[in-house]
Amino acid sequence: MTLDLSLDAVALTEALCNIESVSHDEKPIADEIEAALRVIQHLSVTRHENSLVARTDLGRDERVVIAGHIDTVPLNDNLPVRNDGKLLHGLGTCDMKAGVAVALRLAASLSDPNRDLTFVFYECEEIDSVHNGLRKIAETAPELVGADFAILMEPSDGVVEAGCQGTLRFDVITRGERAHSARSWKGSNAIHAASGVLHRLASYDARTPVIDGLEYHEGLNAVMVAGGVATNVIPDECRVTVNYRFAPDRSETEALVFIQEFFDGYEIELTDTASGALPGLSVPAAAAFVAVVGGDPNPKFGWTDVAQFTQLGIPAVNFGPGDPMFAHKQDEHVPIAQITGCEEKLRGWLSGTGGAR
Amino acid sequence: MTLDLSLDAVALTEALCNIESVSHDEKPIADEIEAALRVIQHLSVTRHENSLVARTDLGRDERVVIAGHIDTVPLNDNLPVRNDGKLLHGLGTCDMKAGVAVALRLAASLSDPNRDLTFVFYECEEIDSVHNGLRKIAETAPELVGADFAILMEPSDGVVEAGCQGTLRFDVITRGERAHSARSWKGSNAIHAASGVLHRLASYDARTPVIDGLEYHEGLNAVMVAGGVATNVIPDECRVTVNYRFAPDRSETEALVFIQEFFDGYEIELTDTASGALPGLSVPAAAAFVAVVGGDPNPKFGWTDVAQFTQLGIPAVNFGPGDPMFAHKQDEHVPIAQITGCEEKLRGWLSGTGGAR
Repeated sequence: MTLDLSLDAVALTEALCNIESVSHDEKPIADEIEAALRVIQHLSVTRHENSLVARTDLGRDERVVIAGHIDTVPLNDNLPVRNDGKLLHGLGTCDMKAGVAVALRLAASLSDPNRDLTFVFYECEEIDSVHNGLRKIAETAPELVGADFAILMEPSDGVVEAGCQGTLRFDVITRGERAHSARSWKGSNAIHAASGVLHRLASYDARTPVIDGLEYHEGLNAVMVAGGVATNVIPDECRVTVNYRFAPDRSETEALVFIQEFFDGYEIELTDTASGALPGLSVPAAAAFVAVVGGDPNPKFGWTDVAQFTQLGIPAVNFGPGDPMFAHKQDEHVPIAQITGCEEKLRGWLSGTGGAR
Repeated sequence: MTLDLSLDAVALTEALCNIESVSHDEKPIADEIEAALRVIQHLSVTRHENSLVARTDLGRDERVVIAGHIDTVPLNDNLPVRNDGKLLHGLGTCDMKAGVAVALRLAASLSDPNRDLTFVFYECEEIDSVHNGLRKIAETAPELVGADFAILMEPSDGVVEAGCQGTLRFDVITRGERAHSARSWKGSNAIHAASGVLHRLASYDARTPVIDGLEYHEGLNAVMVAGGVATNVIPDECRVTVNYRFAPDRSETEALVFIQEFFDGYEIELTDTASGALPGLSVPAAAAFVAVVGGDPNPKFGWTDVAQFTQLGIPAVNFGPGDPMFAHKQDEHVPIAQITGCEEKLRGWLSGTGGAR
């Protein structure tokens, strides 16, 4: 099979989804996408492991990145894709091969766009960020992803979702002393000592700051808890793994200070951190995009690669088909109307002249 | 090698310990013990998988069981045995091959005891009770272990430890609803819901009832805690595994009622239960034994197979060399003086006539 970019975006979504591409296994889909892009005259294509960059070079005043990851979370008995006439059901339909299909359609057909375009199709977004294909390109060949504005085609229900919240993961650790549980008073119970940790978490009041007119919503949650040696031993260690999702008016450092105060008196071990991204809707490129595609922008609660673009100094928004609530769900799906709607809006913005500065 | 029962009990302990016999791998040691017992004229020997019963049949008025398990917990870089002149160090020295060695010495040498004797050397005590060799014999051939009194040679620091506490294991389960941790308010956090469970445990006041003059000491402890789906998912289940060690004035049923009241409002899943054993020091056979061997009896906090004898209607005590605090420890050891002391006391009690009814 060779990927046929003359198909409409719905059929292309189906074709892309039916090429399994769980993180770290993107080679087959990357091969297909590369082969399809290489034959397009108006694009120069480079491959970086299993990620692809395809660029126009028309000397336009403005350059826009349109990006999407090509990996998915693991299969959950939800392939091949099923088309019920209104929805496409199956792994990757929502997160985010419908967005990738729209981007591929635009890449193949917009030979004379009003802005120069850089398409990025990248691997390993769904796993530990050290594997992230976009990050690798930004680190090794930043000139390839430089632009005035970036659109990340993550599912955002067909409207602009601006910015993203940051995320901090850490363990709160309590310690004790082992003893046989038949003589428990000889030891000290680390799981009991975690009672105060859970109590603080259960009492947490979420901050909901409004930024650029968008209301964010923080979250501070135990996502894992583990402790215990054997069922007849008083445990000497308990770990509560906490995920703090913080609004983009806080830096990573500020988020960490908040956590240290919140868990004052407890041992904390930081495991993972990623800054958020301010919505930046007052940046001209973003404001212009919102004006053209219409709809009321929403805040993005989840972390996405818009944060990477922000760190590169490139204003970025999420704009793609699919309700993000169904990402990573067994019953993942995408409304067909959103696929065609997103393509139309982007095509209109990139074909017309009104939107260009 | 053939086990030489003419060795003194210290050398015999060393020899037994150096035959590895982690639970489920008792065949080699059982073979050795069987071969050594079969040649003793005054004993009739039967084998039951990897457990052995050796009985005198002298028509005495009273019959005493002397029992010990031949398995150990897993190796922990603590074999072969090291003899420093005062202590034997190594796996099984304390729990409980020193006790087994004393019993084997008595079995081999007491051809004309003042009571009939039943020696039981059994497999799989250190693991799930369905594998317990003593239990299997009691279920399939109860007549073989019938007696007026039983001595379990578990480590008890060379004095009588009477009765044992019961044990109940159960999970306290809290439930919630999954959601992406970036939109945590859409779900309900099961780990946070366990805050109240840990709070109750941390506030628990232990009961310390005095029975037959012995002060028991209960314990109610989380021994395991587990919860979490992924580090970006609000967890929908949390399990706190609790071990309740209850004094022998409470039945299993009473212990369960206490637990249900203590965790009122929470879901409980019972996993394991074993009744305790009353010290029974007022039973004539036990009182006589204590009077002869001397020392102040202590309460047994850990669960031992005395509870099985109690259920069979046989008064039983723990009496063996070794401090039980060192059982299952890497630095397990037994004082040599306790090995010889235990043997002397038992030999005196079983050789004389004063102790017999």
